[in-house]
Amino acid sequence: MRKDRLKVAVMGGGSSYTPELIEGFIKHHREFPVRDIYLVDIEEGRSKLETVGALANRMIGKAGVPIRVHTTFNRREAIEGADFVTTQMRIGMLDARSRDEKIPLKYGLIGQETTGAGGFAKALRTIPVILDIAKEMEELAPDAFMINFTNPAGIVTEAVLKYANIRTMGLCNLPIGIKMQIAKLCGVDVSEVTIEMAGINHLTWTTRIAVSGIDITADVLNKAAGASGLTMKNIPDFGWDAEFLRSLGALPCSYHRYYYMKDLVFEEMNKAFLEKGTTRADDVRRVETELFELYKDPNLAVKPPQLQQRGGAYYSEAAVNLMTSIYNDKKDIQTVNVRNNGILPFLPDEVSVEVNCVIDAQGAHPVQIGTPIAPQIRGLMQVVKAYEELTVKAAAEGDYSAGLQALTLHPLIGSAKLAKQVLDEIIDANIRYLPQFR
Amino acid sequence: MRKDRLKVAVMGGGSSYTPELIEGFIKHHREFPVRDIYLVDIEEGRSKLETVGALANRMIGKAGVPIRVHTTFNRREAIEGADFVTTQMRIGMLDARSRDEKIPLKYGLIGQETTGAGGFAKALRTIPVILDIAKEMEELAPDAFMINFTNPAGIVTEAVLKYANIRTMGLCNLPIGIKMQIAKLCGVDVSEVTIEMAGINHLTWTTRIAVSGIDITADVLNKAAGASGLTMKNIPDFGWDAEFLRSLGALPCSYHRYYYMKDLVFEEMNKAFLEKGTTRADDVRRVETELFELYKDPNLAVKPPQLQQRGGAYYSEAAVNLMTSIYNDKKDIQTVNVRNNGILPFLPDEVSVEVNCVIDAQGAHPVQIGTPIAPQIRGLMQVVKAYEELTVKAAAEGDYSAGLQALTLHPLIGSAKLAKQVLDEIIDANIRYLPQFR
Amino acid sequence: MRKDRLKVAVMGGGSSYTPELIEGFIKHHREFPVRDIYLVDIEEGRSKLETVGALANRMIGKAGVPIRVHTTFNRREAIEGADFVTTQMRIGMLDARSRDEKIPLKYGLIGQETTGAGGFAKALRTIPVILDIAKEMEELAPDAFMINFTNPAGIVTEAVLKYANIRTMGLCNLPIGIKMQIAKLCGVDVSEVTIEMAGINHLTWTTRIAVSGIDITADVLNKAAGASGLTMKNIPDFGWDAEFLRSLGALPCSYHRYYYMKDLVFEEMNKAFLEKGTTRADDVRRVETELFELYKDPNLAVKPPQLQQRGGAYYSEAAVNLMTSIYNDKKDIQTVNVRNNGILPFLPDEVSVEVNCVIDAQGAHPVQIGTPIAPQIRGLMQVVKAYEELTVKAAAEGDYSAGLQALTLHPLIGSAKLAKQVLDEIIDANIRYLPQFR
Amino acid sequence: MRKDRLKVAVMGGGSSYTPELIEGFIKHHREFPVRDIYLVDIEEGRSKLETVGALANRMIGKAGVPIRVHTTFNRREAIEGADFVTTQMRIGMLDARSRDEKIPLKYGLIGQETTGAGGFAKALRTIPVILDIAKEMEELAPDAFMINFTNPAGIVTEAVLKYANIRTMGLCNLPIGIKMQIAKLCGVDVSEVTIEMAGINHLTWTTRIAVSGIDITADVLNKAAGASGLTMKNIPDFGWDAEFLRSLGALPCSYHRYYYMKDLVFEEMNKAFLEKGTTRADDVRRVETELFELYKDPNLAVKPPQLQQRGGAYYSEAAVNLMTSIYNDKKDIQTVNVRNNGILPFLPDEVSVEVNCVIDAQGAHPVQIGTPIAPQIRGLMQVVKAYEELTVKAAAEGDYSAGLQALTLHPLIGSAKLAKQVLDEIIDANIRYLPQFR
Repeated sequence: MRKDRLKVAVMGGGSSYTPELIEGFIKHHREFPVRDIYLVDIEEGRSKLETVGALANRMIGKAGVPIRVHTTFNRREAIEGADFVTTQMRIGMLDARSRDEKIPLKYGLIGQETTGAGGFAKALRTIPVILDIAKEMEELAPDAFMINFTNPAGIVTEAVLKYANIRTMGLCNLPIGIKMQIAKLCGVDVSEVTIEMAGINHLTWTTRIAVSGIDITADVLNKAAGASGLTMKNIPDFGWDAEFLRSLGALPCSYHRYYYMKDLVFEEMNKAFLEKGTTRADDVRRVETELFELYKDPNLAVKPPQLQQRGGAYYSEAAVNLMTSIYNDKKDIQTVNVRNNGILPFLPDEVSVEVNCVIDAQGAHPVQIGTPIAPQIRGLMQVVKAYEELTVKAAAEGDYSAGLQALTLHPLIGSAKLAKQVLDEIIDANIRYLPQFR
Repeated sequence: MRKDRLKVAVMGGGSSYTPELIEGFIKHHREFPVRDIYLVDIEEGRSKLETVGALANRMIGKAGVPIRVHTTFNRREAIEGADFVTTQMRIGMLDARSRDEKIPLKYGLIGQETTGAGGFAKALRTIPVILDIAKEMEELAPDAFMINFTNPAGIVTEAVLKYANIRTMGLCNLPIGIKMQIAKLCGVDVSEVTIEMAGINHLTWTTRIAVSGIDITADVLNKAAGASGLTMKNIPDFGWDAEFLRSLGALPCSYHRYYYMKDLVFEEMNKAFLEKGTTRADDVRRVETELFELYKDPNLAVKPPQLQQRGGAYYSEAAVNLMTSIYNDKKDIQTVNVRNNGILPFLPDEVSVEVNCVIDAQGAHPVQIGTPIAPQIRGLMQVVKAYEELTVKAAAEGDYSAGLQALTLHPLIGSAKLAKQVLDEIIDANIRYLPQFR
Repeated sequence: MRKDRLKVAVMGGGSSYTPELIEGFIKHHREFPVRDIYLVDIEEGRSKLETVGALANRMIGKAGVPIRVHTTFNRREAIEGADFVTTQMRIGMLDARSRDEKIPLKYGLIGQETTGAGGFAKALRTIPVILDIAKEMEELAPDAFMINFTNPAGIVTEAVLKYANIRTMGLCNLPIGIKMQIAKLCGVDVSEVTIEMAGINHLTWTTRIAVSGIDITADVLNKAAGASGLTMKNIPDFGWDAEFLRSLGALPCSYHRYYYMKDLVFEEMNKAFLEKGTTRADDVRRVETELFELYKDPNLAVKPPQLQQRGGAYYSEAAVNLMTSIYNDKKDIQTVNVRNNGILPFLPDEVSVEVNCVIDAQGAHPVQIGTPIAPQIRGLMQVVKAYEELTVKAAAEGDYSAGLQALTLHPLIGSAKLAKQVLDEIIDANIRYLPQFR
Repeated sequence: MRKDRLKVAVMGGGSSYTPELIEGFIKHHREFPVRDIYLVDIEEGRSKLETVGALANRMIGKAGVPIRVHTTFNRREAIEGADFVTTQMRIGMLDARSRDEKIPLKYGLIGQETTGAGGFAKALRTIPVILDIAKEMEELAPDAFMINFTNPAGIVTEAVLKYANIRTMGLCNLPIGIKMQIAKLCGVDVSEVTIEMAGINHLTWTTRIAVSGIDITADVLNKAAGASGLTMKNIPDFGWDAEFLRSLGALPCSYHRYYYMKDLVFEEMNKAFLEKGTTRADDVRRVETELFELYKDPNLAVKPPQLQQRGGAYYSEAAVNLMTSIYNDKKDIQTVNVRNNGILPFLPDEVSVEVNCVIDAQGAHPVQIGTPIAPQIRGLMQVVKAYEELTVKAAAEGDYSAGLQALTLHPLIGSAKLAKQVLDEIIDANIRYLPQFR
């Protein structure tokens, strides 16, 4: 029979996001009976881990739920016998992110955490660690699910699907965010909104939107034109052009601005950098410092509202929803990153895609896309996925050639010469975190 | 906003099954607010239609629900503005079924209502009528769903998918029946059972079985070996061999006996026919006569328990569940016949398949099969589906060549010479119902 | 630079076919400069090998070409450094074939050397030996081509494609035979005939026929109806029905009679066996005995005309054409068995198919089929291919379950009970040759 | 029987290329017995048509072959009963090309005749005319082949494949040019070189190169690095980087510079334009003027050597080779643009691809690609093909939305805002030639 005392291991447990996750566990405790949460981090993160661990304990104490929080630097101890392993770590911390954002700018390229050359660098650093964790799971928790939040989540998940033999899904707060945005735009409750998403992580198109079962896709595209609020915290809120949206025939996600508006986005980013000398990583560092100051307050025993500003809205909701549905064999529909297996027939079977899935105790089962995918959607998805496949290979195998071709192919780079320059500088700047390239 | 007064048109309303359906509508009335039910039949069925209509009215009166039952011979009146059109008619009535069962026996072939030469004959008679109904729906109820129960349901649904432009699904009581049988076999409640089905109508394999989220497929295959009760009313209850089931790797449906045990089944059928001179149609005729005698009793105001013997167990449950989920945008999972569209990648896109689907207000959305389909399953499904494609073409276009090739290809026939003989006799015996071959 | 002294190793060199092959090498010597031919056999075949070796030497001597013939029981010696390895051996010799033909008859099934239960038995015996040879080639002649003639050639080739890492093609004399038959039927020279073939070994449909560039497919189908001569030596020459051919839309091969006319063929076979107590193997044994008597004649220095009666017409032509085209990088079109890889998109990528290929020094490159494949062709090909996949698995891995499902699925068996009985008797009768099942 | 007096209609017969084509017809006259050549043009091209027609007559006269040259403005007369219709016209003439090159430059984009926004504009102008011709062929020459040379040849051919019902192939001199370049690079005769090409027009990768049957792909990639001469007349001869070529794993075509070196190419183009105020169209106009001066010389009766400078090297060879192989049912291999139909399984079936084909009297039959296509090749091909599909739709249906998405998606544009600006200016500047947008 089903276990009633669950163990969850959180990789990168010292993250400022952790209180969000703890709040979710508390809220869903009846449905999802976590008994032990292991927050795992590395020595460099000791102080953050201790702060977060203490806050988590205060939150749980206040809520009066029978959860035990453990903080540890021993990853194997945390993984052993776990039911779920979640990953939210940032290899190289914000300094690395800062470099990811600044290096591309030098070459006239968008520098962003998950997309383009910046996302590529993050993938190179993250995948070796994720695969180590996956190998430990094969040994110590072979039936556990890895719920992967670490960005670039699609690429990281694909690496696990290809190079390890565990059950895994990638999860992003963007799908739930879009649903919320649509609900707000239409003035209805989010529970009434049904969306069909097709795409890959951070590049999903909402191909059909229904409210209470009635298809209102065309209406939403009209309303969305020029509307503000259709974006994430970290992406410039440029409005979409009405004619463009109508001709696209689907609602783009906020990250699409990096593609469809790459000139505007670069200009804005570069201007900000030239003026202030900082990028998003620097803002985040400031926010994080403030958050940790708050977290240290021994009287704080709830998730502070300031965390909402951090950018990871609905993260807890997405994560706990997913684990709860698996645990309870719910068969509801959530949008997650899984092996394609033909659900998007124009992408290879073995890649990761982000699509609507039925979630049950066996995992995530993709639902067929009912809407024909137009060439404008298919073509962009295909070229970015090919970039991702090459990036997975480069990161998992230390394959320089794959890396060079990945960056050459990426729509935000697209030049063999620039690709080589950026690649060499990325490897050089990150070599400490790149065992596969040493 | 969503309608709160629904109109349902029942093609073949004079069927002995109708009280089952009426009971379902009564039971789910709150969730599925039918206001008008049109029972449609043809002049030859006047007496049955009137009897059934009167019983339906008594049932509704007793239940005290605000449904109005209309009986009519005017199909257009019934279809106009309908929200759902269900089909359960039998072209040529039981006399035709009797011929469908007897003609093949003459040639040493299994004669069965939905499979082999008998099912082929039924498809030839039914498809012209179904396509007429579909054309009327295009004109008079373009947003309605056709819920097709008429056998051979997969072939008939495929004809509508290929030759008409309406929303349709084919429905069979076999999937729900298998779930019930498994629940019984395992001693659990049916609500705890999850099954993954892959196949085409009357040829579905249950590829994964879980109880409360735990995969017990191998257990069930062991338990199913030799077990009785794993069948439908009208199929000999030969037990499956343990070694065979294990090597098959999935639970076959009851109709698989016509394939895997075709020699035994033929022998049994033929023996019965030689001894008694009758086939299943004759038994059904007797049961129906008795049922209609019961139905005429002016004191009867519920579905009589004897109907359960008729063979259509769970029919009402399956039908009303499906319509209720569509109406309420439920997003639960039911197994229905839909356009393949790649969900079984080894079958053409445009054919009908019977698979797990998410049911919502837009219709049925197939869920990806998680289990690899073994060659033994794939190969049989492919050859029978090719037979079905040819049958659809023969029936919809009056294409004799397609019919000849269909029967030659069918695993229960498999000889060009026999195929021609049977085909010619079928056309001859049914020519009154085959406008496409006149 | 290209080699100008080739080594060819002939597995089963003691076969009565060998003089045919030697004749081919002599005839094409300028284009295809064989220097060393190794005829390999096993101890039991010593006398035949010596007889054939001596005849080969006399033929070469008479022709005055610089070829050396070696006879050996040391397979490794023969394979080492070979450029081509051809296979034409018969594991268990004619006694085994005799059993393959007789066991199925007992169960009311067609007993045939390459199709149905008989072909299955031959595959079980042959594949372990072929895979041993392939492994030796990986080690001793990694760049050589294996040209596989051993029946069932499609299944045997598929086993090599799946379980070994060498270059291989399966070759059959049927495609060249059909071209010859068409030329004769149309009264034109074979060089003017172009055919497009689609299928799998011994189950190929000729989908397009042109003479001097003009499509005459429909004409040929008309002419072929009822015509004699459209068959191989070992298959009853039943004529095709005109209406059937037209509705099929392609020219079936001679082996199709086992499927489309299975009742007639079984009747004829069974009658002959009941009357004479013998099967085709017994006829062949008699012919072979006579041939070897001829071969022993020290004055014989050419291929005796009686060999033509043996059944392998055009065998030499097909084999030497193929090797010559590879050696000379000819880029002409021949019909061979290769990995599918999507050329027949309704079959798995990794199976063997028999299709038109461009032959060059790199191997065989399938040419796209220009004609749409009708469901009647697709369905039969799919079910027989699924049987073949299961047979390959059974034979290569000693997988009893796969064998049981293979026979259950085969259109000439199609019953789980019969399949089990035949399978058990086949394994029992052949256990000496089935290391994988011991 | 096969015709021995062929009629060829040349659309855009007044082109400066025509003498090249005439030379080809003269040279291959025995194999390819053209009797009548119709040079068709429009009134605006009267003077050029007359000049070219007169030169053609002098060339034929001098050669003493029985060909008749007809010049006409009546397209229907030329098409009626033709065996081949070749297209080489330029709608809007060099003025339009000049605009195609200059408009994109204004927006910081590469302006090129066949690729990017310039090629898009040319497609919009050309496709309506090509489809008119195709419709006339359906009526007046239903068995003829359209051999389409008009750029962008892949897009134009795809339009005919999708919107007309005639036999057609697109032909480019690039494949034959690459073979010549490789022969030169390796110091061998072109007849010894075999190449496997995969791609779409002006975006083909040479995935395998053999000389005399020996695979030398890796060698050629090494040699090609930095080599000059691997380009066409109209493309900057930037050398490829060795590491880039090795990591690409295939030889790119000369047009790939517009993608992999887009920054360098733009810089060079823009610099030239800023300095001289002219683009390639202006150079071509000058060369053409000079050529026509030469053509007018009544003593000239051969193709003048200066034509070689014009850019269409091997054009005649490619064209006449293709028609000769069709006429003679040769079954040799040529690289042409045909319907994909699964030969590149990662592109839709119905698009045009440029691949190796067997050429026979029925047309072009694609040969399976033997080499796995790496993601770096697949991804770029997919995104550009999606652009092409949208362009075909925009051009054939006057679909503004498709045009907007086409340009947004193209890797040389990639911004929704720029796409709209360029699209509007292109439509405005070409409105005279765009009936579909009026």
